[in-house]
Amino acid sequence: MPRRFALLLLVVCLLSAPVARADEGMWMLHQIAALDQDGLREMGLQLTPQEIWDPKTQTGLASAVCSLGGCSASFVSPDGLIVTNHHCAFRAIQVNSSPEHDYITDGFLAAARGEELPASGYHVYVFKGYDDVTATVHAAIEPDMTPEQRIAAIEQAEKKLVAACEDGGDRCRFAEMFGGLEYYLFRTMDIRDVRLVYAPPRSIGEYGGEIDNWEWPRHTGDFSFLRAYVAPDGSAADYAEENVPYHPDRWLKLASTPLGEGDFAMILGYPGRTKRYRIAAAVEADTDHYYPVRNRVLAHWMELLEHEAATSTSAGIVLSSKIKGFANSYKNGQGMLDGLLKLKIAERKRAQERELAAWIAADPGRAARWGDVLPAMEALVDGRQATRDRDLLLSYVGYASSLFGAALTVQRWAEERDKPDAEREPGHQKRDEAYARQRLALLDRSFEPAADRLLFQDLLRLAAALPDGQRIDAIDAALAGTGKSGEEAISALTDRLFAGTRLADREARMKMFAMDAATLAGQHDAMVDLAIALRPQTRARDEAEKRYDGDMVLLEPRLIEALAAWQGRPLYPDANSTLRLTYATVKGVEPRDGLIYKPFTTLSGVVEKNTGKEPFNCPKGLLDAVAAGKRGPYVDTRLGDVPSCFLTTHDTTGGNSGSPVMNGKGELVGLLFDGTIESMTSDYAFDDTTTRSISVDARYMLWVMDYVDHAHALMREMGVTPASSTP
Amino acid sequence: MPRRFALLLLVVCLLSAPVARADEGMWMLHQIAALDQDGLREMGLQLTPQEIWDPKTQTGLASAVCSLGGCSASFVSPDGLIVTNHHCAFRAIQVNSSPEHDYITDGFLAAARGEELPASGYHVYVFKGYDDVTATVHAAIEPDMTPEQRIAAIEQAEKKLVAACEDGGDRCRFAEMFGGLEYYLFRTMDIRDVRLVYAPPRSIGEYGGEIDNWEWPRHTGDFSFLRAYVAPDGSAADYAEENVPYHPDRWLKLASTPLGEGDFAMILGYPGRTKRYRIAAAVEADTDHYYPVRNRVLAHWMELLEHEAATSTSAGIVLSSKIKGFANSYKNGQGMLDGLLKLKIAERKRAQERELAAWIAADPGRAARWGDVLPAMEALVDGRQATRDRDLLLSYVGYASSLFGAALTVQRWAEERDKPDAEREPGHQKRDEAYARQRLALLDRSFEPAADRLLFQDLLRLAAALPDGQRIDAIDAALAGTGKSGEEAISALTDRLFAGTRLADREARMKMFAMDAATLAGQHDAMVDLAIALRPQTRARDEAEKRYDGDMVLLEPRLIEALAAWQGRPLYPDANSTLRLTYATVKGVEPRDGLIYKPFTTLSGVVEKNTGKEPFNCPKGLLDAVAAGKRGPYVDTRLGDVPSCFLTTHDTTGGNSGSPVMNGKGELVGLLFDGTIESMTSDYAFDDTTTRSISVDARYMLWVMDYVDHAHALMREMGVTPASSTP
Repeated sequence: MPRRFALLLLVVCLLSAPVARADEGMWMLHQIAALDQDGLREMGLQLTPQEIWDPKTQTGLASAVCSLGGCSASFVSPDGLIVTNHHCAFRAIQVNSSPEHDYITDGFLAAARGEELPASGYHVYVFKGYDDVTATVHAAIEPDMTPEQRIAAIEQAEKKLVAACEDGGDRCRFAEMFGGLEYYLFRTMDIRDVRLVYAPPRSIGEYGGEIDNWEWPRHTGDFSFLRAYVAPDGSAADYAEENVPYHPDRWLKLASTPLGEGDFAMILGYPGRTKRYRIAAAVEADTDHYYPVRNRVLAHWMELLEHEAATSTSAGIVLSSKIKGFANSYKNGQGMLDGLLKLKIAERKRAQERELAAWIAADPGRAARWGDVLPAMEALVDGRQATRDRDLLLSYVGYASSLFGAALTVQRWAEERDKPDAEREPGHQKRDEAYARQRLALLDRSFEPAADRLLFQDLLRLAAALPDGQRIDAIDAALAGTGKSGEEAISALTDRLFAGTRLADREARMKMFAMDAATLAGQHDAMVDLAIALRPQTRARDEAEKRYDGDMVLLEPRLIEALAAWQGRPLYPDANSTLRLTYATVKGVEPRDGLIYKPFTTLSGVVEKNTGKEPFNCPKGLLDAVAAGKRGPYVDTRLGDVPSCFLTTHDTTGGNSGSPVMNGKGELVGLLFDGTIESMTSDYAFDDTTTRSISVDARYMLWVMDYVDHAHALMREMGVTPASSTP
Repeated sequence: MPRRFALLLLVVCLLSAPVARADEGMWMLHQIAALDQDGLREMGLQLTPQEIWDPKTQTGLASAVCSLGGCSASFVSPDGLIVTNHHCAFRAIQVNSSPEHDYITDGFLAAARGEELPASGYHVYVFKGYDDVTATVHAAIEPDMTPEQRIAAIEQAEKKLVAACEDGGDRCRFAEMFGGLEYYLFRTMDIRDVRLVYAPPRSIGEYGGEIDNWEWPRHTGDFSFLRAYVAPDGSAADYAEENVPYHPDRWLKLASTPLGEGDFAMILGYPGRTKRYRIAAAVEADTDHYYPVRNRVLAHWMELLEHEAATSTSAGIVLSSKIKGFANSYKNGQGMLDGLLKLKIAERKRAQERELAAWIAADPGRAARWGDVLPAMEALVDGRQATRDRDLLLSYVGYASSLFGAALTVQRWAEERDKPDAEREPGHQKRDEAYARQRLALLDRSFEPAADRLLFQDLLRLAAALPDGQRIDAIDAALAGTGKSGEEAISALTDRLFAGTRLADREARMKMFAMDAATLAGQHDAMVDLAIALRPQTRARDEAEKRYDGDMVLLEPRLIEALAAWQGRPLYPDANSTLRLTYATVKGVEPRDGLIYKPFTTLSGVVEKNTGKEPFNCPKGLLDAVAAGKRGPYVDTRLGDVPSCFLTTHDTTGGNSGSPVMNGKGELVGLLFDGTIESMTSDYAFDDTTTRSISVDARYMLWVMDYVDHAHALMREMGVTPASSTP
């Protein structure tokens, strides 16, 4: 595949070019050395690229950063103490809460290490390094392969690489960059005994709640502490009393100098997914269909759940996490749609593609090399639109009803379990089984029968409303099987499935999870039977997606190649939940006509927002400490107050939550936890005049620990002397 | 009453003292001369006090300012052209709208003078001057009068003064200042033929709707034009085709220099009501009871009406004005409550009163003179609390159901009509009859039977829920009379009253309005009968209020006297819908921690907010004009854009809506239409660090007139040459 290698060289060459001061870019760690070092030094970076991460020795500051799977975090003590966002630790707080011990409301602080609570379901993935495996993967692809064969070949290569990597005891993750231009294998240590150490009350950690979500000014103390535990021999192990704190190679120290406006700051974390190279036709489909439909569905589900949650305290606690998830997705989707429309992202992409096409067409060599790329990609995107309503609905089926989600899980595992491990779909191999089993076991914690029925019924209703040519046969047949029609059929089918399933029983559920396909089918569990009946349709959809991916994997790298050649600037790959660096400055913004966001908020602002009513209900301890004038060494003299949150120009996205924000010396100055609503469309296109990331200032975190929650032992563990007590 | 005169002199003396640069103060026009003239000149005022208003000749710039009764406005041409807010002209737009001619949505521009539409119900009160009548009123009060006698004596004096004044053909208004320390008689010409000349589409005039109400950044083109018409002989007359435009003595010219940040600006207008001298005990009652209860009721009524309005287009148009009114009151009340709590106004007043009491107690002379005032006022306020739920509900009865409101009106008029004119309650004299009749006749325009029933039922429900000791006997008896209880009684009574009333029939209603009490009672109209039965209770409440007022009228002037002596600063009277001047500068603000409001918004910001969906649906003409780059001479070079709205530090309140904002030369630079939400509590206490008034910039108004609505003839009438056309 000579063309691919040529492209690789081109990009490496481009990455050596000086980088402008723009704060765009989620850089892979080996790319740091290729950035403009003088510029970075001028901005305030005092570390060498190798001190952040040395690809040769596979060591550096980045070792202190870990993934929680969906969130980022960092070690802050030699004893495995981890700081992340409150919302990232929320499930750990929730599973330990009960009407008797409401840690969500009251917060939690372990009085001693022995009293740290198991954060069931949590994993800490400690970063150990990564290798370029592009050559191996590209070598597996033959020119005459069909799209499906191409994807299968890449998957086979992935499995072999991952299996070989995990033989050494690491947890390994395969990642495609630039749509298939490059491939990497990331190694982590997978720590499974994670414990909740300290979480402030929700009224600090989630201060402002949904009202302030994505907003500025912000005053959320969005931080919590976990600890990684390992077996006495230092190996990763399931929770056990005799386990001991993990000792990381590196951990972050708290900042020794105060952060101010204009200061350099960098973030190491795990941004989830961006779509910077998505073509206009795909953005149009997202704008015209995907977000509008999805937002309507989510809004309705939230309404259903909130109504249920209001019925009892226990329902409220059980459903809170699910509601939060829906609410966050909804606000995200709505903000995204508003932003896409307002900033005319699709139109701008169209215009850019017209220019690119003209540039390609203007030169015969370019035309021969890239002339077919954009039309071919557009045709692929257009081809998907015929079944978009059905495909979107099929993507929801596991998220509405937890019980039906469980049915789909046991069906898929039974199907895959019948295959040799190496032939299974990624995510369903032996290596994935423990995690899947754990998630399935924990279903009870967020399962509420009445709410689950409502969501399931709504799913049926959505399926019943699909247009001709996009029907889901399995659901149509099941509805017809009730002998009724319309709402009556939906009610009858729901009744039959909920009465005829044993999935709500944990023991029965876990037994089904262990079965092969034939045994599972022999159970005649009504809900599992529907999942089995649905499988041909989801399989057909999966296969169509593979064909799409198999075509795209030849096209997208060539688009990126053309873009790089046209623009003559360095490129970074789209976010894909792998470790990245983004550097920036602390800076306010004029988000809309007539309005200015200052770069810092303050403790006084926290109190100013207090209404006594959720989500603006400061705990008494906080109000008392402020009233008593206790501000200690956490005051920023320029602000005359303790900073609460701050804005930066970092290029971040979902998954970056909990990432450490560090100063030029690599010391912790805050935790990223959100972006302003104006930044949402940066997933599609980064605009440095409007995009701002939101972090909680480490000084606010320490102030709360010192004066409100008296987490003095933890402060000392982090090397900070509490001001409110002497040891 | 020697003490009173002494106090008067004291205040006059204090008013001569130099005034600090604070922008607090709604000054009476004769007080302008006592303000610090050097300070005003330094700020940018280029007029002498006499040029604004000369009390001797009773002439000046203030002649150009008029009242619409509830809104302010100003003349802007020699032919009686009046500019005010869109929301002030809204009823005029509404009553002329129909499903065929939806001027609310489409806007209205009279093609010629003959096509200007009657603004039924509108009055223009042209300011002619005012006289100090304090001596006459004080002379009417005898030392040994009971509280009721005192109020009756003041009312008698008022009636005599008003009657004598109106004998000359003017419309006269009696006004108490400083709680009875001073009294004035204001003379106006009452123009009754008012016509709608031009209103932009609602999507300009109400751009941002309820979402942006009280908010910044703001982009509302809240302006509309009316014209005052008089009989050919120049006298005020009812609408008639032969009427001719009124020629005012003075009218405002458009600004000849561009307004910028930091510039001086002054407002002449009719602020409705402030409570700056209200004592802490009264503020506490407002915070703990009045606003929370009222807001709950309004929120519920809005919900009921919105539900009804959604049922049909005609119901929507008919109810829109009522919903707007409730929505505005609700947002106002909720913002007020939030602000009172947040700014701790009651606590601050308490602290201030403790200091004042200490200062009074510290000196035997002061103790003898004022020692009894605060305790006596507190006792009066406390005494009212025993029946506060019932009294608050009685204050609603006329606002919920329009039909029941009409019943109360005809009952009260019948009762008063039995008395000699001079003995009637103010507001129910012969002079008030035409206006009351007109309002009653126009009821149909905002009456929707289904919605009216819902609100009436809710009123009954609220009455049924009153605590013991505060029951309303008439309603209890009517409910008991149905022979049913609970919800069933409420439904049955509503059915009976709506079936048994002819008030919905205009002719029958107007006939009843003309009846004396005995004839009215003989009609046996079910709803009127309830109004008659209710009267003893409202009369008892009215009498209790008179006793309260009669006691207060001796106390409040003494409180103000003590305050003035203690603080040693000049005082201005509370707003009471009389003409006032407030001066200020154009200035942004930091309203909350982390946020800055810039002083100007721009045309680009108008477009930036456009979503195409109400209330952010710019008309196509506006978007086209912007897209075509049409900005003309309305661009402010400092902003690089046409200014849309601006912030000032003016001291304003409801009633000021539509007030002209003038530069130092007295030229029109904008129209005040709102305040920021942070300013709401300024009704209780002015805080110049947070209070900001919001005005629409005259340049945005002209830009819309020029490029969007092509109101070129009106522009020429105002002396402005349109840029988009040549005559």
